[in-house]
Amino acid sequence: MNEERFAERRRRAIEAAEAAELAGLLVSPGPDLAYLTGYTPMPLERLTLLLLTARREPTLVVPTLERPLAESASGAAGLEIFDWRDGTDDPYELVAQVLGSGRYAVTDQTWASHLLALEHATADCLFVAAGRALPLLRAVKDPDEVERLRAAAQAADAAYADVIALPFAGRTEMEVSLELDRSLRVHGHQSVDFAVVGSGPNAASSHHDPGERRIGPGDAVVMDFGGVRDGYWSDITRTVFVGDPSDEERTVYGVVRSAQQAAFEAVRPGVPAQEVDRAARAVITDAGYGDRFVHRTGHGIGLELHEPPYIVEGNETPLQAGMTFSDEPGIYLEGRFGVRIEDQVVVTDDGAERLNEASRDLTVVA
Amino acid sequence: MNEERFAERRRRAIEAAEAAELAGLLVSPGPDLAYLTGYTPMPLERLTLLLLTARREPTLVVPTLERPLAESASGAAGLEIFDWRDGTDDPYELVAQVLGSGRYAVTDQTWASHLLALEHATADCLFVAAGRALPLLRAVKDPDEVERLRAAAQAADAAYADVIALPFAGRTEMEVSLELDRSLRVHGHQSVDFAVVGSGPNAASSHHDPGERRIGPGDAVVMDFGGVRDGYWSDITRTVFVGDPSDEERTVYGVVRSAQQAAFEAVRPGVPAQEVDRAARAVITDAGYGDRFVHRTGHGIGLELHEPPYIVEGNETPLQAGMTFSDEPGIYLEGRFGVRIEDQVVVTDDGAERLNEASRDLTVVA
Repeated sequence: MNEERFAERRRRAIEAAEAAELAGLLVSPGPDLAYLTGYTPMPLERLTLLLLTARREPTLVVPTLERPLAESASGAAGLEIFDWRDGTDDPYELVAQVLGSGRYAVTDQTWASHLLALEHATADCLFVAAGRALPLLRAVKDPDEVERLRAAAQAADAAYADVIALPFAGRTEMEVSLELDRSLRVHGHQSVDFAVVGSGPNAASSHHDPGERRIGPGDAVVMDFGGVRDGYWSDITRTVFVGDPSDEERTVYGVVRSAQQAAFEAVRPGVPAQEVDRAARAVITDAGYGDRFVHRTGHGIGLELHEPPYIVEGNETPLQAGMTFSDEPGIYLEGRFGVRIEDQVVVTDDGAERLNEASRDLTVVA
Repeated sequence: MNEERFAERRRRAIEAAEAAELAGLLVSPGPDLAYLTGYTPMPLERLTLLLLTARREPTLVVPTLERPLAESASGAAGLEIFDWRDGTDDPYELVAQVLGSGRYAVTDQTWASHLLALEHATADCLFVAAGRALPLLRAVKDPDEVERLRAAAQAADAAYADVIALPFAGRTEMEVSLELDRSLRVHGHQSVDFAVVGSGPNAASSHHDPGERRIGPGDAVVMDFGGVRDGYWSDITRTVFVGDPSDEERTVYGVVRSAQQAAFEAVRPGVPAQEVDRAARAVITDAGYGDRFVHRTGHGIGLELHEPPYIVEGNETPLQAGMTFSDEPGIYLEGRFGVRIEDQVVVTDDGAERLNEASRDLTVVA
């Protein structure tokens, strides 16, 4: 990543803020700060904040002890850095002086403690959530980002292939989860943030924490796992069956697979995000399971696991080429079993492409 | 942890809120939610919020798909759980209806996007940061918590002992950092969140990211590392020398060690937190290095790496038995070297006890 790329992203952010009639954008540690500066500190109680306005050079406020790290960030060129010292300086007053008055977007993950202190320190500033005011700041990926997301997705595919080659019956959910974790790391992940394994009735809880339940013959097993590879997230779900599935399980699996495909086929530039959700939901509703599909069809993915565009009823955002998001309908039959199938997809000039290539065929494991 | 302990903590939180003339406390995913319910979801863009008020039973608002996990949390007994569904329900309206009017504390890590949406949905509510209004909610540890912190600290001590037994000269900072990471995990850490290794001039940057610099004879090496063991954090810093230190390095090391000891000896119930900072700072200032001690003396530690009480000028909070925090003065000579020594301490009935037991003697490594 060269410095010019970061400067260009900051210019684009300021233009988007102006187009949204904002005086600027305040960026806290997290994915937006990484995107705009390459600086990736832990979010903490000490204020670190990037101030982007058209009126001045991009300004980064950091605790004194973090200044050397901030200066060495890959996108630090062109940033004016102000540091503040524990116990003597008030960083919120410092920000207030820089901002003057106006309406500013603040990044969604900014801590409430920082926002409340800013609201207190600034008399004439109004703050709005960047996720609402500038939801698409990182939504359209450049080709390099798409390739990183593809590499993360393919690593997740490889971990899935590793794990279904092993026997399931007789092992606990936790054992399978640890195997997914290990395999994601083997395939280049720096962190593994979730490795959901829900078997039998637990498969009906869409975000089940893997536990000591021992997987047995006849179980459906939902595996939803991912993490970070080279800065970008993977996130895949597959549902497998231990031995021959029942007729009902086959039916439900087929409905979810058709719904996932219908959503995929609905994706192309210009289509409102909610239409993709509707495409999946129509298939599941027509099959009589509408009330068992208890979540949206998908979420954007990139430097963050969940980010715009959200594939949900009510989101009229038109899709654009380069957007990346999940396609993950599911059906959950409480106390019995559940099925979810999830791929990451990228919008292309005339449709969509899957980043995950693991088979979606009904899969029976040992 | 039995359910009654969580219920008791929630009662105490509500009493503290009332004593602070608050209508209640709103708790987002993070350490406070873990402390009060045992529920530990990832903070996400979907609203999860615990509402604690004297007027009603503790109420947990969760996305529908997370409900089963919330219900199975170790402290879920006694919680009224409301769930909301993607695309059809507005969780902020739901919270607004429950809250009515009043002044509420919100936990510091609540995302700005959630707080701004709550400010928008509630006409007659005012929000303040819990860290300011109720800073001591988790500050006084119960004996079980102290023992967990001690076990984490001793694991960090053991990792330090492992690493200084190996040669430093010729290895890169990153290699030593990975060794610290590995050793913390061997000694029972579930996650390792930082393993700072700053050598030579990099030792003067207090939060240096370990890099490809190869450590050589004559270097000072600052190692600041820690993570989570059994839910509670470790955090230790030691500075070692590769071969015989110079006279100046010996002098600076001695000053930092004396300052760290002076702070430790200042700790006892009733002493304002800032007095501990002053005790360390006086030693360093008297030695002529006052302007090179660029950070506070310490931070509380527990379910969170940095939490109240902060050991910093301006914090008049009287220390209480059971509080746990770091004692970590340092001196940083830019472009040359730096020294920091950090232990975790617990306030006892008549003074303080160190949780870390690794030697603070000047240590020469190979």
